[in-house]
Amino acid sequence: MNIQGLIQAISRKKSYLCVGLDSDITKIPAHLQSLPDPVLAFNKQIIDATKDFCVSYKINTAFYESMGTRGWETLEKTVRYIPDTHFTIADAKRGDIGNTSSQYAKAFFETLDFDAVTVAPYMGADSVKPFLAYEDKCTIVLGLTSNAGAKDFELLQTGDERLYEKVLRTVASWGSKDNLMFVVGATQAEEFTNIRRIIPDHFLLVPGVGFQGGSLRDISEKAMNKDVGILVNVSRAIIFAGEKENFASEAATIAEQYHHEMKQFL
Amino acid sequence: MNIQGLIQAISRKKSYLCVGLDSDITKIPAHLQSLPDPVLAFNKQIIDATKDFCVSYKINTAFYESMGTRGWETLEKTVRYIPDTHFTIADAKRGDIGNTSSQYAKAFFETLDFDAVTVAPYMGADSVKPFLAYEDKCTIVLGLTSNAGAKDFELLQTGDERLYEKVLRTVASWGSKDNLMFVVGATQAEEFTNIRRIIPDHFLLVPGVGFQGGSLRDISEKAMNKDVGILVNVSRAIIFAGEKENFASEAATIAEQYHHEMKQFL
Repeated sequence: MNIQGLIQAISRKKSYLCVGLDSDITKIPAHLQSLPDPVLAFNKQIIDATKDFCVSYKINTAFYESMGTRGWETLEKTVRYIPDTHFTIADAKRGDIGNTSSQYAKAFFETLDFDAVTVAPYMGADSVKPFLAYEDKCTIVLGLTSNAGAKDFELLQTGDERLYEKVLRTVASWGSKDNLMFVVGATQAEEFTNIRRIIPDHFLLVPGVGFQGGSLRDISEKAMNKDVGILVNVSRAIIFAGEKENFASEAATIAEQYHHEMKQFL
Repeated sequence: MNIQGLIQAISRKKSYLCVGLDSDITKIPAHLQSLPDPVLAFNKQIIDATKDFCVSYKINTAFYESMGTRGWETLEKTVRYIPDTHFTIADAKRGDIGNTSSQYAKAFFETLDFDAVTVAPYMGADSVKPFLAYEDKCTIVLGLTSNAGAKDFELLQTGDERLYEKVLRTVASWGSKDNLMFVVGATQAEEFTNIRRIIPDHFLLVPGVGFQGGSLRDISEKAMNKDVGILVNVSRAIIFAGEKENFASEAATIAEQYHHEMKQFL
């Protein structure tokens, strides 16, 4: 699915929810731990229970790499399990010199066949463009992130704008709104009006709602555009809503609440 | 091996060469391609042939991830094959919000047991500090990279210094010279004197010699400190020196030339 497909899915479903499969093996319910692949079993039940309320799943590679080769296998099986009605994001935050970024693009867009991958901008054009060369895929570049560390460099003044503004403006000129999105944390609500001045048309992937404290109302009011233009990710608040056998139905309850709230903002 | 161990290895061997195992499966010799794990076979022969001339191996994760789970398995087997007399670097350029960076640190420092991992600084303190929490491992943060894109953001003026200078100065305050290094590309030779004013004591991982055109003499003259303080990485110019059955001895010849040159600078 490309960005146009995502826009149609949002319109059809009246949801702009992305569920983040940050499936830390130490946090998944005890009764799954004896299975051959506890994280895959967990993910499958979460996906089955939440797919009616969301349009996308985001898999953060860190939680899989920490388990080594076995974890990478779980990641592959998870992305294959996600129905093709849903937009799949590898939250990998990759980026390297040109010939190496091409290998990462191949890894996520071809080998794993994700629809989108997150990319770090620090190394500049040749680190980002190999991803954008896949015109029917989606490259999601870090803009202003949700964490406290965003102030260290992203919010630094560089000439007449701050670094993240320069990143948005510069990277936007390398791709189009049809193959490029940006990450903007929900905890940065006071910046959304400004961000929409710089990139009115691009989709934003917005993490930081839920556990990190960002407000869905705030960002929906400030950041939507005519295509809706925001994909709001919730990870821990949904997937770890319950700790016991009924974890999947607890996750569905929270996902449905987000869906219900989103319908009001559309 | 920690940074102290690396310093001793350099002193003993009179070499500060790191061989980069950017083992792109499409570039390894034809006679290996029919083996069950061509890249592992290639890596083992390269390691056997070059280990006397270098003190470190750097594995760039991109070339392994592009092969999916099978590639991750090759990566695991390769790092296990490297003798513990050599400093092992995962060139992964990871970085995420705090709880997620902890998972990456676990992946590379515990599950894969690398000595060092490269980290991207864009997201700030909480994205870097979980790596630095492993005090007997080494976190290598991107400073000024070797690629053309370095000019897009790394060389931007921010107040009275440029972004990469701010990154060096800020990140240096989060760790010590015993658990923190920086990446500075060899193609940036004119910046090395300035870099040594900011971080006189830290080790630098220096890619960009060989295929990318950086000069070993230039960086050795400008960037060495009392601990030697530079680890120079050469990837393609060594591992792809030959294309036929004798690729390993061709690689050894080039590695030995670098070693010979380095002895003169020490």
